[in-house]
Amino acid sequence: MTGTMRAVAKVGARPGAEIIEAPIPTPGPGEVLVKVKVAAICGTDVHIYSWDQWAQSRINPPLIFGHEFCGTVVELGPGVKGAAVGDYVSVETHFTCGICRYCRTGRGHICEDVKIVGVDRDGCFAEYVTVPAENLWVWKTEVDPEIAAIQDPYGNAVHTALECDLVGKRVLITGVGPIGLAAILIAKAAGAFQVICTDVSAYRLNLACKLGADSAINVGEVDMKEAIMEATSGWGVDVILEMSGNESAINGGLACLAKGGEVSLLGIPSRRVTLDLADGVIFKGARLYGINGRKMFETWYQGQALIEKGLDLKSLITHRFDFTQMDQAMELMRTGQCGKIVIYPNGSDK
Amino acid sequence: MTGTMRAVAKVGARPGAEIIEAPIPTPGPGEVLVKVKVAAICGTDVHIYSWDQWAQSRINPPLIFGHEFCGTVVELGPGVKGAAVGDYVSVETHFTCGICRYCRTGRGHICEDVKIVGVDRDGCFAEYVTVPAENLWVWKTEVDPEIAAIQDPYGNAVHTALECDLVGKRVLITGVGPIGLAAILIAKAAGAFQVICTDVSAYRLNLACKLGADSAINVGEVDMKEAIMEATSGWGVDVILEMSGNESAINGGLACLAKGGEVSLLGIPSRRVTLDLADGVIFKGARLYGINGRKMFETWYQGQALIEKGLDLKSLITHRFDFTQMDQAMELMRTGQCGKIVIYPNGSDK
Amino acid sequence: MTGTMRAVAKVGARPGAEIIEAPIPTPGPGEVLVKVKVAAICGTDVHIYSWDQWAQSRINPPLIFGHEFCGTVVELGPGVKGAAVGDYVSVETHFTCGICRYCRTGRGHICEDVKIVGVDRDGCFAEYVTVPAENLWVWKTEVDPEIAAIQDPYGNAVHTALECDLVGKRVLITGVGPIGLAAILIAKAAGAFQVICTDVSAYRLNLACKLGADSAINVGEVDMKEAIMEATSGWGVDVILEMSGNESAINGGLACLAKGGEVSLLGIPSRRVTLDLADGVIFKGARLYGINGRKMFETWYQGQALIEKGLDLKSLITHRFDFTQMDQAMELMRTGQCGKIVIYPNGSDK
Amino acid sequence: MTGTMRAVAKVGARPGAEIIEAPIPTPGPGEVLVKVKVAAICGTDVHIYSWDQWAQSRINPPLIFGHEFCGTVVELGPGVKGAAVGDYVSVETHFTCGICRYCRTGRGHICEDVKIVGVDRDGCFAEYVTVPAENLWVWKTEVDPEIAAIQDPYGNAVHTALECDLVGKRVLITGVGPIGLAAILIAKAAGAFQVICTDVSAYRLNLACKLGADSAINVGEVDMKEAIMEATSGWGVDVILEMSGNESAINGGLACLAKGGEVSLLGIPSRRVTLDLADGVIFKGARLYGINGRKMFETWYQGQALIEKGLDLKSLITHRFDFTQMDQAMELMRTGQCGKIVIYPNGSDK
Repeated sequence: MTGTMRAVAKVGARPGAEIIEAPIPTPGPGEVLVKVKVAAICGTDVHIYSWDQWAQSRINPPLIFGHEFCGTVVELGPGVKGAAVGDYVSVETHFTCGICRYCRTGRGHICEDVKIVGVDRDGCFAEYVTVPAENLWVWKTEVDPEIAAIQDPYGNAVHTALECDLVGKRVLITGVGPIGLAAILIAKAAGAFQVICTDVSAYRLNLACKLGADSAINVGEVDMKEAIMEATSGWGVDVILEMSGNESAINGGLACLAKGGEVSLLGIPSRRVTLDLADGVIFKGARLYGINGRKMFETWYQGQALIEKGLDLKSLITHRFDFTQMDQAMELMRTGQCGKIVIYPNGSDK
Repeated sequence: MTGTMRAVAKVGARPGAEIIEAPIPTPGPGEVLVKVKVAAICGTDVHIYSWDQWAQSRINPPLIFGHEFCGTVVELGPGVKGAAVGDYVSVETHFTCGICRYCRTGRGHICEDVKIVGVDRDGCFAEYVTVPAENLWVWKTEVDPEIAAIQDPYGNAVHTALECDLVGKRVLITGVGPIGLAAILIAKAAGAFQVICTDVSAYRLNLACKLGADSAINVGEVDMKEAIMEATSGWGVDVILEMSGNESAINGGLACLAKGGEVSLLGIPSRRVTLDLADGVIFKGARLYGINGRKMFETWYQGQALIEKGLDLKSLITHRFDFTQMDQAMELMRTGQCGKIVIYPNGSDK
Repeated sequence: MTGTMRAVAKVGARPGAEIIEAPIPTPGPGEVLVKVKVAAICGTDVHIYSWDQWAQSRINPPLIFGHEFCGTVVELGPGVKGAAVGDYVSVETHFTCGICRYCRTGRGHICEDVKIVGVDRDGCFAEYVTVPAENLWVWKTEVDPEIAAIQDPYGNAVHTALECDLVGKRVLITGVGPIGLAAILIAKAAGAFQVICTDVSAYRLNLACKLGADSAINVGEVDMKEAIMEATSGWGVDVILEMSGNESAINGGLACLAKGGEVSLLGIPSRRVTLDLADGVIFKGARLYGINGRKMFETWYQGQALIEKGLDLKSLITHRFDFTQMDQAMELMRTGQCGKIVIYPNGSDK
Repeated sequence: MTGTMRAVAKVGARPGAEIIEAPIPTPGPGEVLVKVKVAAICGTDVHIYSWDQWAQSRINPPLIFGHEFCGTVVELGPGVKGAAVGDYVSVETHFTCGICRYCRTGRGHICEDVKIVGVDRDGCFAEYVTVPAENLWVWKTEVDPEIAAIQDPYGNAVHTALECDLVGKRVLITGVGPIGLAAILIAKAAGAFQVICTDVSAYRLNLACKLGADSAINVGEVDMKEAIMEATSGWGVDVILEMSGNESAINGGLACLAKGGEVSLLGIPSRRVTLDLADGVIFKGARLYGINGRKMFETWYQGQALIEKGLDLKSLITHRFDFTQMDQAMELMRTGQCGKIVIYPNGSDK
């Protein structure tokens, strides 16, 4: 396909983003060209937009950013198998090397040379984007495009939550941004006895309750341990899904963890954290699991099954914008007064 | 049995220990009286002897201390099953409540009301000691009494090491006190590809090499990460058996951990530790396991099988003393210039 | 407690049962006396009543039979801990030896010297029964006595179903007697994507649908493999919960099992079964798990959590009788035109 | 590369094989051309050579057969990554589709559209063979070519044995052809307490003893259960590695299996097998695992680590032939008076 397309790009080493006109990319060997239908904004995009320290060290402008999206395959590069023009697809955003020892043992989610679309190469805040065919998740069933667009964060939540057996368990979710919110739905669907959420945002805790959380605790206002022990009648929690990366949330969770409990760690602390390893982990015989990305593609199969069975992912989405409203969307992201924000290449599709 | 016996006791709230003459105890319902053959000194005993902060908060003198030992059953209390007078026994030193939710689900090692012999009730630095019959490990095979006496720390090592699959793995043992030393033998027997040890004691690293460690790194002298990456040709370690409780050892280990790696945490940090959770655990998809005590009695079955198959536990033992030489033994323990120290109620048995 | 009580007993080596007047039993050391509130009939009781080959080889009359029940603790034997007079209880019916290698490693469900109440010693078809205190499950929450009475078969279903991770899985239940019916509820609660049931009883398949089965296939009328492959759009099933002990059900299930699938085997075949091990198990990389009894007491904790969360076990119960109507109840059991049948020591409680 | 090469082929639908002159094949996209250094004969090759029922239904002559080999990469097809000319390689013989749900979840060993080299396309009984680059195992360390040639059956043994935790376990290997023999070495290296072998071939049982089996039982001569219970002092076996596909071996093994035991099933029964599922599996709470091929490439990493650590795979190899002696080698295979047979494209390399 030739011609140009509209895209949102970081054009220079400075805060902000610009709407540009760029050539439609050509899929390489094993790649496909996808016409973007709906995209979504991730916290990572806010880092890039804001041009913080992490972004400065990782991003090489000019770059079209964005990595959460769905769309339609419109062109195949040479040697593609397993995909066809017309396929309605979501995309696993971690492009793996395929040859490292982790890739070769079915653990592509910890590939030692991973490339992330919209971070290490041009992304989805554009009308078109190229991706390896092996990264496609082709939908065979009807699924709302806004749901198909947020499979990346949803997959993080699926991976984090299903690393532990949740049937009959008391589950604590520390941090209810979009991924934590998705984890509420997943934990309920997976048989959790009780889902307790903590955060410091009243807006998000309110959303958590609407999504089915049994307790939503504002740890900016009450004592975390006290509140959780009360909510569990003194039992403590069996499982923690850590989505905050926040030191006091992690320690507060560990203090309430039942012996033999499990902790899935997804939230990335921005600095070293100081933990009570003796009482919080060792004496308890607790287990901690680092979670990265999505298991390829076990997480996707699990996630799709839950959606087909009725998990209401749509309820995570609170706002919709056009590409041209990126500044406005980013501003909203920064306030935290939102669930998931989706954006449209062409606002009239909203 | 009536009469008195010789014992080593903490008689008051102050440093040191005294040789006392005490009544031979009477076994209660479900308990047996064991005549002590060989005992051994644990780091915990040094805390009690030294009367440090932990000891002051936990120990109520007068107390006969000591918890590592073997002996012979000489008297049964009422209602005992599964043991007989004459049985040659080691003893699981954690006496569990039997009725908490952990005990009721086969996880007595994290019992919520555990009592430890020699800490919470009179222990084995005596000619006789009472213990619940269900805590006995009856030896049906020949085993050296000095080996039978150190099943408690050996069991810690078995539990820690076998929590991970070690076959073909690069294994790092951080800290080679007696438990770390035992872990070397276990890891080798369990099929580890390579066993790397770190410590700051030249004496103990030397002992580690004699016991079969493939590398012994003095992290007081060289850069830990550099040395380990070199020893593993850049691979890193697949498994860490953490025996030190030391913050820099933990972080140094995590820095060398391969992605998807596993960490068994046994060493108890004396204070909170500051960890690089993002790079050390989360991005790596690593797993951390808190280890407490010994699995009852799976650890014991595993440990015995390894001993029967030839694991040379005797090589851990470097010094032998009589009860009357307790001060001397404690002093040696403090220097760290020793492997395991065993003590005899009657020095002439040495 | 002294005096006599009404009971249903096998008084001689012949078919049938009799209502007898027997002395109220006295609890031994570690035992309690339970006043039976509601009991239930198991297939095993039908074997005993009918006096078939298995019963003749296992049962020593005179015997009060029956093992599914709930009641109230009315007397404690010596040395009981963890129970009190007045406790409202269900009972784990497998009384374990406590000293075999399975008991000592937290696997009492495969104890090598297990005694079953109502089979190896007097059971619950009586006004009073004695049981070891350690076999009690004390209810701290409100639970309907008819539900509390059927924890034994419910626990079989919990153990069988939760041996596999069911989240997002296509689950086949072969055989929907009361245990299979309970498994429907459990699988749905545990996040199964789809629950397919097979049986040859229209009555029970109808009940299965009422309880929430997504498909109920009468394998006496249609081709099992064809029907299951159609129900799963060609995917096959990920998990089989085998409740029938029937050779053709097992082979039919294996033929539909997806590669890498799991099979929990609870149903006891009455003779050897001929299996397609190559295509059904080996080439598929399938896993088969033998299931016996209930995990003590993990299964109980799991089961209670599901009940508290709303699992509607009451819907399994289709008929209620008085002890004096035992012949009538047994006759109904034989026809299979029932779900679970509960019986009352005193019919006026119904 | 152009020109012709010598190969051993099935040229028509009849028993036997012929030495032919064939064009050197050209590697397709993603493939490489390998110059064969050493090959080995598998039981499958005997089926093809003998032209039995299975062979007639699966093989389409003309076909160069053979699938166990090592060699050197001499040419790269288009788009190859992770391999270079000159690489010394073994080859995973199962070529997976890469796009089925099993491949996409890291379970290529149960790919639903697998192609086997030497069965579904031309194989390694030739001077050159083409294979997908992703199927290469590139040796970075020195390894004897005869060892490198038998990684396929060795990998079967690794996969089968390491599916179970063997540390301290009593392990029964039923059937000691080359894979069973390899399993002895693996089980010993992985910490097995005891390795017991059964077979009906005195030759192979003798070889088993030389390789380190603790007991070698000729079940053609003695009662299997009796002999195993005696060898284990009445304990039974904890793990069975089933390599025979033989009904009586499977039942004999299950009869000796300890409760809670595990069974890895690799041997392919040629017909349905009749099992005592009740006593052999269900009441025991046993677990059975179907094993197919090798886990890609976890099995390979495990296998290489064991070889590097000293596992003496060379001792499996008892005979060496030139391609031109194929009839003689096949005849020897049929007698069973051999361990592993390797063959050389050019006999002077032997």
